[in-house]
Amino acid sequence: MSDGNALIRDKTAIAGIGTTEYVRDIGRTEQETSLEVIHEALADAGLAATDVDAIFKVETPGEASISELAVARNLGLPNLRAWGGTDYGGGAACGPIVHAVMAIATGMASVAVAFRARNRGSGTRPWSKTGARVGSNMAFESPYGLVGPVQQLALVARRYMHEFGVTSEQFAQVSVTQRAHAARNPRAFFRDPITVEDVLASRMIADPLHLLDCSLETDGACAIIITSAERARDLKQMPVFISGASQGMGPRHYMMNGLMYKDDPFDMPPAYAAKDVYACAGMGPGDIDVAQFYDVFSPMVLWQLEAYGFCKPGEAGPFVEEGRIDWPAGELPVNTHGGSLSEAYVHGFNHVLEGVRQLRGTSTCQVENAEVALVAAAAVVPTSALILRR
Amino acid sequence: MSDGNALIRDKTAIAGIGTTEYVRDIGRTEQETSLEVIHEALADAGLAATDVDAIFKVETPGEASISELAVARNLGLPNLRAWGGTDYGGGAACGPIVHAVMAIATGMASVAVAFRARNRGSGTRPWSKTGARVGSNMAFESPYGLVGPVQQLALVARRYMHEFGVTSEQFAQVSVTQRAHAARNPRAFFRDPITVEDVLASRMIADPLHLLDCSLETDGACAIIITSAERARDLKQMPVFISGASQGMGPRHYMMNGLMYKDDPFDMPPAYAAKDVYACAGMGPGDIDVAQFYDVFSPMVLWQLEAYGFCKPGEAGPFVEEGRIDWPAGELPVNTHGGSLSEAYVHGFNHVLEGVRQLRGTSTCQVENAEVALVAAAAVVPTSALILRR
Repeated sequence: MSDGNALIRDKTAIAGIGTTEYVRDIGRTEQETSLEVIHEALADAGLAATDVDAIFKVETPGEASISELAVARNLGLPNLRAWGGTDYGGGAACGPIVHAVMAIATGMASVAVAFRARNRGSGTRPWSKTGARVGSNMAFESPYGLVGPVQQLALVARRYMHEFGVTSEQFAQVSVTQRAHAARNPRAFFRDPITVEDVLASRMIADPLHLLDCSLETDGACAIIITSAERARDLKQMPVFISGASQGMGPRHYMMNGLMYKDDPFDMPPAYAAKDVYACAGMGPGDIDVAQFYDVFSPMVLWQLEAYGFCKPGEAGPFVEEGRIDWPAGELPVNTHGGSLSEAYVHGFNHVLEGVRQLRGTSTCQVENAEVALVAAAAVVPTSALILRR
Repeated sequence: MSDGNALIRDKTAIAGIGTTEYVRDIGRTEQETSLEVIHEALADAGLAATDVDAIFKVETPGEASISELAVARNLGLPNLRAWGGTDYGGGAACGPIVHAVMAIATGMASVAVAFRARNRGSGTRPWSKTGARVGSNMAFESPYGLVGPVQQLALVARRYMHEFGVTSEQFAQVSVTQRAHAARNPRAFFRDPITVEDVLASRMIADPLHLLDCSLETDGACAIIITSAERARDLKQMPVFISGASQGMGPRHYMMNGLMYKDDPFDMPPAYAAKDVYACAGMGPGDIDVAQFYDVFSPMVLWQLEAYGFCKPGEAGPFVEEGRIDWPAGELPVNTHGGSLSEAYVHGFNHVLEGVRQLRGTSTCQVENAEVALVAAAAVVPTSALILRR
């Protein structure tokens, strides 16, 4: 294992986190909740709004855009020295933090905010606008019923079952495990335990994906404060160092579904983000104590277990079935907050917060002596990843 | 003067540039022209598409969005390790390059593309959609006739004349000077010389701005290749080192027009970008041999001459009138390609290309022995700047 990227590895840290409640209808705009969680994250870090000089956000075409300018003005910031957006929704769960790391590591900014606010519980889905034009590959796919992520991903899930003998029970086990984690988390939207039978008996949304294989639709917002490792050491919270940070896309990628376009439909973006995040941190899968994986649908957790090297291609089904992602008994507890399947759907930003809590020792499913956490964004779109260290 | 930011200063370089023709109706989509200019810039650098591992773009809500994913796929890239967008249109003329600098300086990527494509000659203006909703401060301003940048900026220009005794003739001189530069540039859309009288006799668009005080509306695209200084030394072109890079916004900023909101309406974003770009490069105004200033309307050049420290507040009018921005006689030739007033309106990206040409010694208004060029983005929106060195 190499020593990692000397300009990035452990040079920055997450100093503060903030989140709203996670509910179906939060009754406030995304801009309002963004400001709330940024204030909360600053208070958590022991910093003032006037300390912030960088903002990085998620930019998803067709969704409510929250301008850095409006955020800066409403926070009363004296200046912003760095800002920008990262596209691809759930794939950008770590992307804005990757950009903040680059800005701070180079001295182009000193305190950065990364945030995500999304009223997906009360608002509309991007694909639900009747008569909306779709472009690129989706123009060819949507007439055949692939109108939203669940239909698009269902085909990939079915092909994955076919290729590797993975079962619906194994998909369901992801939801069951994460619900058990959520049962201990007072923030989680769903906390009542479920069984594999419950998942299989839930309504079929797009074969083979049942309702309980699908993520929640909630309103909520999350913010994260990033600063230099040096400065973080003097702040209120124990710093959570950013050892590795990456974005990855891979070749010939199409949004959501590579089946029709790639020789190997399982050649997915996380394999590229994984290679770089491990190289950056100078670590490998064996160094990871706990992982938070983007989980818009249960099979995506399996694909990330494989892409991030915790098991070989096609072996994640049995891995999950054997309880190896369970807390506290598993070797790699996954989504200890309940994830998007049970805690909330904030496009994966809540997963970064849970990674931070694990290293602060404040998770409601605390992994004993957790030293290193992996946080990974969506598997089927251009993606991003972080390795965090206590 | 300090030694600058040791992690950024001269660590990266512009290795290639590409541009389309500049015409009223280019007959191809922004995505097509983007790909063309990226290929041209790569050929200029002597690099292959497969060398690219980062793409940074401008993200303007409401305009055609060009996905990094589609660009990467169409270029046949094996992977992207860094990407993102920068908002605020003309303020982002240098922003994507600032981000590319951070990515390459930290080793998060090795060869980055920054690009801008805009069919503003043949396409619609963002504010021209009848019945379109406007938000933020514009919701309060547009009912009073401030429907687009020309009306918004006209008020600022009038106030500037009132405060400092600047004249319409001085604004006009900017257009006249730049047209004289454009006369030597075969790429320029307008090349016929004009006089101050011509500008003042041209149609009044929004008092005090005449037609010839306003930038062109053209179709066109530009691309820039950024890599490490070390790698650039081995490539086809003489490297143009990036000594300074910055983004800046300032406090309480509103898009386009600070008159109604700020105590000092001339407390504009470039003052903040200027401070940081000089600090980064370890340079000051006295080190600059040639400047390319974003010039959507002629007064904006004056505001940047002041913000970047070439003259005191209110003194840019006489500075221009005295011929001090003229090529070849002036002490600081400005917009030697003709700028947006005469060459083309590619939202300021063409200004970066001209900065590069000056340092390569290939401008059609070549400043003798030019060693250092300043390139600055729009003055009235969150902005960005570069200092380039031979």
